[in-house]
Amino acid sequence: MPEHPLETFFAPGSIAIIGASRDDKKIPGLLLTFLRRNGFAGAIYPVNPAHDSIDGLPCHPSVGVIGRPVDLAIVIIPARAVLAALEDCAAAGVRHAIVISSGFAEEGGASAGMQAEIAALARRTGMRVCGPNAEGFYNEPQRIAATFSPTVDVKPEAPRLVATPRRLGIIAQSGGIGFAIYNRARAMGVAVSKVISTGNEADLATGEFLGYLAQDDATDVVVLFVEGIRDAQAFVAAARRAAEARKPVIAVKVGRTVAGARAAASHTASMAGWTAAYDAVFARYGITVCDDLDEAVAIAAAFCVAPPAKGRRVGVVTVSGGAGAWIADAAAAQGLQIPELPGPMQAEIRALIPSYGAPRNPVDITAQAVHSGGLQKVVALLEASDEVDAIAVAVSLASETRMPVKAAEIGPLLGAQRKPILIFTYTLPSAFARAELAAAGTVAFSGVASLARALRCLADRGDFVPPPPVPAHPRAQSGIAGRLSEHESKALLRAAGIAVLHEVLVPEKARLAATLAGMSFPLAMKIQSRDIPHKSEAGGVRLDIRDAGEAAAAFTDLIENARRFRAGADIQGVLVGPMACPGIEMIVGAVNDPTFGPIVMAGFGGIATELFRDVVYRPAPVDETEALAMIDALKSAPLLDGFRGAARADKAALAALIARLSSLADAWQDDVAEIEINPVRVHAAGEGVTVVDALVAGKAAAPPRPD
Amino acid sequence: MPEHPLETFFAPGSIAIIGASRDDKKIPGLLLTFLRRNGFAGAIYPVNPAHDSIDGLPCHPSVGVIGRPVDLAIVIIPARAVLAALEDCAAAGVRHAIVISSGFAEEGGASAGMQAEIAALARRTGMRVCGPNAEGFYNEPQRIAATFSPTVDVKPEAPRLVATPRRLGIIAQSGGIGFAIYNRARAMGVAVSKVISTGNEADLATGEFLGYLAQDDATDVVVLFVEGIRDAQAFVAAARRAAEARKPVIAVKVGRTVAGARAAASHTASMAGWTAAYDAVFARYGITVCDDLDEAVAIAAAFCVAPPAKGRRVGVVTVSGGAGAWIADAAAAQGLQIPELPGPMQAEIRALIPSYGAPRNPVDITAQAVHSGGLQKVVALLEASDEVDAIAVAVSLASETRMPVKAAEIGPLLGAQRKPILIFTYTLPSAFARAELAAAGTVAFSGVASLARALRCLADRGDFVPPPPVPAHPRAQSGIAGRLSEHESKALLRAAGIAVLHEVLVPEKARLAATLAGMSFPLAMKIQSRDIPHKSEAGGVRLDIRDAGEAAAAFTDLIENARRFRAGADIQGVLVGPMACPGIEMIVGAVNDPTFGPIVMAGFGGIATELFRDVVYRPAPVDETEALAMIDALKSAPLLDGFRGAARADKAALAALIARLSSLADAWQDDVAEIEINPVRVHAAGEGVTVVDALVAGKAAAPPRPD
Repeated sequence: MPEHPLETFFAPGSIAIIGASRDDKKIPGLLLTFLRRNGFAGAIYPVNPAHDSIDGLPCHPSVGVIGRPVDLAIVIIPARAVLAALEDCAAAGVRHAIVISSGFAEEGGASAGMQAEIAALARRTGMRVCGPNAEGFYNEPQRIAATFSPTVDVKPEAPRLVATPRRLGIIAQSGGIGFAIYNRARAMGVAVSKVISTGNEADLATGEFLGYLAQDDATDVVVLFVEGIRDAQAFVAAARRAAEARKPVIAVKVGRTVAGARAAASHTASMAGWTAAYDAVFARYGITVCDDLDEAVAIAAAFCVAPPAKGRRVGVVTVSGGAGAWIADAAAAQGLQIPELPGPMQAEIRALIPSYGAPRNPVDITAQAVHSGGLQKVVALLEASDEVDAIAVAVSLASETRMPVKAAEIGPLLGAQRKPILIFTYTLPSAFARAELAAAGTVAFSGVASLARALRCLADRGDFVPPPPVPAHPRAQSGIAGRLSEHESKALLRAAGIAVLHEVLVPEKARLAATLAGMSFPLAMKIQSRDIPHKSEAGGVRLDIRDAGEAAAAFTDLIENARRFRAGADIQGVLVGPMACPGIEMIVGAVNDPTFGPIVMAGFGGIATELFRDVVYRPAPVDETEALAMIDALKSAPLLDGFRGAARADKAALAALIARLSSLADAWQDDVAEIEINPVRVHAAGEGVTVVDALVAGKAAAPPRPD
Repeated sequence: MPEHPLETFFAPGSIAIIGASRDDKKIPGLLLTFLRRNGFAGAIYPVNPAHDSIDGLPCHPSVGVIGRPVDLAIVIIPARAVLAALEDCAAAGVRHAIVISSGFAEEGGASAGMQAEIAALARRTGMRVCGPNAEGFYNEPQRIAATFSPTVDVKPEAPRLVATPRRLGIIAQSGGIGFAIYNRARAMGVAVSKVISTGNEADLATGEFLGYLAQDDATDVVVLFVEGIRDAQAFVAAARRAAEARKPVIAVKVGRTVAGARAAASHTASMAGWTAAYDAVFARYGITVCDDLDEAVAIAAAFCVAPPAKGRRVGVVTVSGGAGAWIADAAAAQGLQIPELPGPMQAEIRALIPSYGAPRNPVDITAQAVHSGGLQKVVALLEASDEVDAIAVAVSLASETRMPVKAAEIGPLLGAQRKPILIFTYTLPSAFARAELAAAGTVAFSGVASLARALRCLADRGDFVPPPPVPAHPRAQSGIAGRLSEHESKALLRAAGIAVLHEVLVPEKARLAATLAGMSFPLAMKIQSRDIPHKSEAGGVRLDIRDAGEAAAAFTDLIENARRFRAGADIQGVLVGPMACPGIEMIVGAVNDPTFGPIVMAGFGGIATELFRDVVYRPAPVDETEALAMIDALKSAPLLDGFRGAARADKAALAALIARLSSLADAWQDDVAEIEINPVRVHAAGEGVTVVDALVAGKAAAPPRPD
């Protein structure tokens, strides 16, 4: 396989520091100091016309005069000087650059223009640029600290805690957060491959970096901190590649709220985007969404020390009964099971623990059994059994001199792990305990909730298979503009192969009688106007019309209500049709996201969607298998499976509708903004679904009406 | 005020250690070692017939021969010898005892009997006993370490980090968890008053200890770790006292799941009980429920360093834009607001930060402004303004030499805090930084989620007023046994003043016609049998009966369906009545909890209750004000407030029904197990509610039927 183009970005043979300085209290000076102190073995070329030499290294007035190949230039000069420096770099054949300087798109105005010029330069010259407003990277195995983050400010002789056999890669737009994750992972003993801060992402962005880590042999697990994705196609391809390579990805997405989005916009000039679209993409590729620093690190750590779990049954082995009860509750809250162990196994355990211990699961071995070696024996028993799929061991690791779990004894168990064994400490772990566990190749977890979440992620991972790519549909034009009325929307959907009821648009009252002649009561009548998307609120719906007299009165009322609701509304007439058969009311729709394109959604009608937000999203298109998985992911899914003695609903027909609608949204993405079928009624199994109401809206504004 | 009887428990002048030992690798030896090493200033009397002296102290063969007053005896001898030793203690006038020994109720069998004898001894002699199976206590201000927990194994000369002006008390049945909370609080710098491990609670239990801490001048905030409450009355009284004293209480309740309850049962022999009853009591007294160790400590820390917030608007001041965005999202997820600051204030802030910073809120001052002193100035500006109610400051505190926030500058702001100012670090805080912050009287928060939760708790606390005690109702006998049928239940409720529809029980078909004569169609008909509580499932309900013919046919069907559903069911007849007017369907009920007595509940009917568990509980009785608060605490509450253009519902009538039902449950608690009104339809404001169905069940089994 050819070398990845970013290989020399992360492992440059030579680095130029443009704007290098002697003052290592400030960023330019720190860059040089950290690079050298961490033992960078390649050539370093300080560039600064104000100095002849810095810290014993010859200093060059410009990149052009170095006269030797430069793999990476780190640029830390005032924003207004950056573009010229980058031009110099490109002219000198520099392969990659990191712009640390701030004051570009995040500042707005003319500064945003300078960033656009950097992007153009990268496209034009082929020199790849990270930043601006970035904090650089750290390549930990090769000790390349191309960053001013104080978290790499280590004494060379300081012992490094590297506990995990697998390594974590970290990508963050925010250097502060990226290196904070690094800082916490390192404190826990998690081995790190690369930490990269991507800043404003004028050129190189998160998706491309994820693609690099997905193929990087030094990286096994990835944590992302995302304010907004700029290279969505690259991101999606990278997410698929990581899933196929079985590399777990954990993502923190901020900017989910108005204030968070405001912060992201002014920080790295990211448009935070529509949260549901992000979650849709994350869900499809098995990316774990996370909300806390320590939780992200704990989940990553679990993937770095343990294999995925083959099922959801957890054995809890504890020195503290209280901790055992707590872990059991937290694990159950994550949807895991803590099965009571079978009698014979309990009897075996009883022989290893005091009489006042508990062998049922949680297994409370009591502090006593630590001294007698009972802990290791019980863990070994569970490890060898078929009763549990993962093991959580709760101990106190506060002591600086004594270990309740002996590395020598538990090490072989961990080394041969066929199922995850995670060690939890209810007290804070001592440095001694961390080092002892590291010798056995594992780490200590110290949060109850994050331990349980990590166990659940291991079980989710055990199940997870990335869905096969759904072939994209040939693009097509729907030909619409603006928002359609119900009957226009339904006509479009019907023409595209979605079954809708036979309904007739009656433009004026005089033609009502003729229409009724071909129909049987009871009937439904609905006002039709592009200007009245929510008909019920406008008094625009009449149901259960039983005879022609009721129909005539209803027609008049509907037109009058509409005129009262919105004077000047363009009324197309009244849609007349049969009452839809009863069924479970759901919503199926698609929205065209500016970042990720069409996103399909499914949810239950009424309060489930409105108040409980019980809605599932996936990138369109989905096939029927993925559509079924969407349905089953709804909290209200039991309603479709014969809830409380009701008939099972036609999930297959609903899945087919979701899949079909997702294909349409995909094909029509050039001119359709939104499709919503709300409600669709799902009938009993085998009896299909009925599209009761529908709305399609084009991206372009509707042409002005000829008034 | 007289001294609290537990004052000499926590501050004894003299301590006897029964079972004292020289071997400080084991528990008996550690007790003596830790007591002395932490500097206990009172008399220590080792008791052990095997030794003449231990560690330079004379050792006594029994408590009886000490010949001096003993305030506290710590008992650590084999379980079978404990009772006799306690008898000796009581005879010698010992005031309090802690039984560390295990092997009592948690072991079951005869060992549980020994525990009952300890309880009886305490009642008989008046000597108060903590434990058995306890880990003792630590009185931190007075340095009394009556415990073998390794977390008090400190070098006397080791520096202590005490950052907070207020002190935390900790009560846990589990010593492991109690001292783990202590361990983490101390590491963070939270000052601690007392940590007490209550073990199996044969005599002294959590409620009584909470009552002590509620009046203890050294304690300002309390964390509880609860497996099950044994002294419910004392607990409730203590919770009220703490609320009235404005001492925040944070509770972790485990045993919420089957496995968690199993663990609690075998650990401290606690019956974990019905989770909803605990949450009902916690909610009434403003006790914060928490699920994680670090979260509990973070919330406690917030209360120890900051005043309650007067509102929910948070200002975020950050050195890292990413951290600012994350905190904003996390705070919004907790229901807090991060308002954009007004223009003039933004202009003031702009003058203090670089051009690429952000003044809107989150305020991104950038790393640059740390050096220029902008951070303190921005915080001071927000502190003085009326735009926010609390301030979160995000910095990196990893450095062992440099501080982004200067204690000398921020100290005065913190000292005069009128609104909470919490400091968050995205990197892990260094010991140096913790010490510097301690000098300014504050601590560093390091979890995003727990910081947001802590901010929310400060805002909740600002609002919170303990509800006035609702006078208990005179006990009354409902006179029922077993489960009543619907019409029996309704008759009971009607007699007790709850309005129900006029319905007639028709015992046989021959009497149907006469009943119909007095009614107007449409009618509802429902099978009545104590053996068929779920009538719909049995085909036992017919609605919208339009004439006498339909009614006759329905009668036959209902009886036949019932016989088919349950052969031998005792059928009382068919209840005939008017159709209930439409309304929003809700559930109101009460359950008699074995720990806390009657608990009243309210929720929405259908899937909101079944699938989303949108139900609120409170201890009965509640008044109408508390009932209204219950209704408003439902996620679905907007449904009652004119959702999507619907009429506002009669919340007052619903609240009156909840209050009335809660009074009945309270009065009838001796013989009623459960009352459920499901559904009750809530009509438009001013139009009241309709009890559609009801079920009352007695505690005693129904008398056998004379077959």
